[in-house]
Amino acid sequence: MNKQELFKNIQRKKSFLCVGLDTDINKIPEFLFDDTDDNIFAFNKAIIDATADLCVAYKPNLAFYESLGIQGWEALERTVDYIREVYPDQFIIADAKRGDIGNTSAMYARTFFGNLDFDAVTVAPYMGEDSVTPFLGYEGKWVILLALTSNKGAADFQYMKDASTGESLFEKVLKTSKQWGNEDKLMYVVGATRADMLADIRNIIPESFLLVPGVGAQGGSLQEVAKYGLNSSCGLLVNSSRQIIYASSGKDFADAARSEAYKVQQEMEEILVAAKLVE
Amino acid sequence: MNKQELFKNIQRKKSFLCVGLDTDINKIPEFLFDDTDDNIFAFNKAIIDATADLCVAYKPNLAFYESLGIQGWEALERTVDYIREVYPDQFIIADAKRGDIGNTSAMYARTFFGNLDFDAVTVAPYMGEDSVTPFLGYEGKWVILLALTSNKGAADFQYMKDASTGESLFEKVLKTSKQWGNEDKLMYVVGATRADMLADIRNIIPESFLLVPGVGAQGGSLQEVAKYGLNSSCGLLVNSSRQIIYASSGKDFADAARSEAYKVQQEMEEILVAAKLVE
Repeated sequence: MNKQELFKNIQRKKSFLCVGLDTDINKIPEFLFDDTDDNIFAFNKAIIDATADLCVAYKPNLAFYESLGIQGWEALERTVDYIREVYPDQFIIADAKRGDIGNTSAMYARTFFGNLDFDAVTVAPYMGEDSVTPFLGYEGKWVILLALTSNKGAADFQYMKDASTGESLFEKVLKTSKQWGNEDKLMYVVGATRADMLADIRNIIPESFLLVPGVGAQGGSLQEVAKYGLNSSCGLLVNSSRQIIYASSGKDFADAARSEAYKVQQEMEEILVAAKLVE
Repeated sequence: MNKQELFKNIQRKKSFLCVGLDTDINKIPEFLFDDTDDNIFAFNKAIIDATADLCVAYKPNLAFYESLGIQGWEALERTVDYIREVYPDQFIIADAKRGDIGNTSAMYARTFFGNLDFDAVTVAPYMGEDSVTPFLGYEGKWVILLALTSNKGAADFQYMKDASTGESLFEKVLKTSKQWGNEDKLMYVVGATRADMLADIRNIIPESFLLVPGVGAQGGSLQEVAKYGLNSSCGLLVNSSRQIIYASSGKDFADAARSEAYKVQQEMEEILVAAKLVE
């Protein structure tokens, strides 16, 4: 999927919501265990069917699938295949935070873009250019590079100031990585907990899409994110995971997820209308 | 395994070699495909049986297994189980370069230390403390934190100087992470391509073990690494992957791997004797 297609999906659905599939076997409703032997996929399928018209992206978090071993990989494969087949307009993100020397990153790229048909993978920048570029060699596929994350530990290194330029590490990541790929191949993870930083970030990467975690449960404000982060192609994918997928632990979990997703979509629609990005 | 046990294994085997199991289905000898339907495990088993008395650690590279999907995870599980059962004195490292927000890192920790019985996992520092600490909560298990890597891209961010302290990012990673765990829980990846940097690194973390990639095929010198990196508990695990496991692509691949491992072990024995760490 290219940037124009993603923006068109956002306009059509009046939503820039990404639903995070952090599917935890200890949190999914108990009754699912009676009905099926692939309860992770059954949960995901119900969530996806209930939310697909309200969001433009799904983001399985690899850790949750890997923690189940082979059963988890099977559920992940089935989930990606299901989205791809039934909802082909969805942008599917492997939240994997990978990054290694070139030949190893090439293996990860093959995993997520070859074997599994993800549209994008999250990548950590610490190891630099040759750890990222192997992911950029796939037509229509994206790298989502960690820049400023939403967790407490972000403060440990990401704000470190460069002695020669005065820039923060995350700013250096943004500026340096622009030489590796443009806004048609490269997005960035930018946490919502410091929405005011988005203004500075937009100065560096005005045209790029940002994947924004940390809205809702983690305390970020969608209005603030939109205020500083929107660009002429929307330029935002805002993720919500737990708040949507665990809205209820009862038989109504999918309906409850839809209600939560609907609330977010309605707020996003207002924002998009106000910004004249949709009619 | 604790630090003392690791050092005792090094003394007993007169080796601080780690064999990297970067097992690539496109590089393993063709005849293995005739003999077995689990050729990745068959390859690993042959390499392990041929080298176990010459090394103290094995390091499966997760990317190579994930790239094969479910078949790869099965081979990985069988490999770890086999080493654990037949060679219980081996230190088994998941080279995974993981790191995410706390609840997600906790899932990865469960994968590598709960489901799979690895002794250590490599972790990327970019997301800071809460991305690392979940891995530190397992008795006898280790984090191997990326500090200074051996690839070209290491220069992009790891040498960035802190405006307030003048330290490089990798030095800041070393100093900051010392507050998260001590040398009984935390090792560091330090590339061998800049062996002179090891002297500075040893000033910051004199007692810690270092996992050193990049010796051999990637150009680092074992003598140089030992000169600057050895401490009173050896303090080094030097990894070699391709040079050993792909020493031959013929029927003699395991013997050829043993010959390469033996050469390295002999050089390590000389180094350990000269340093009076073994008799």
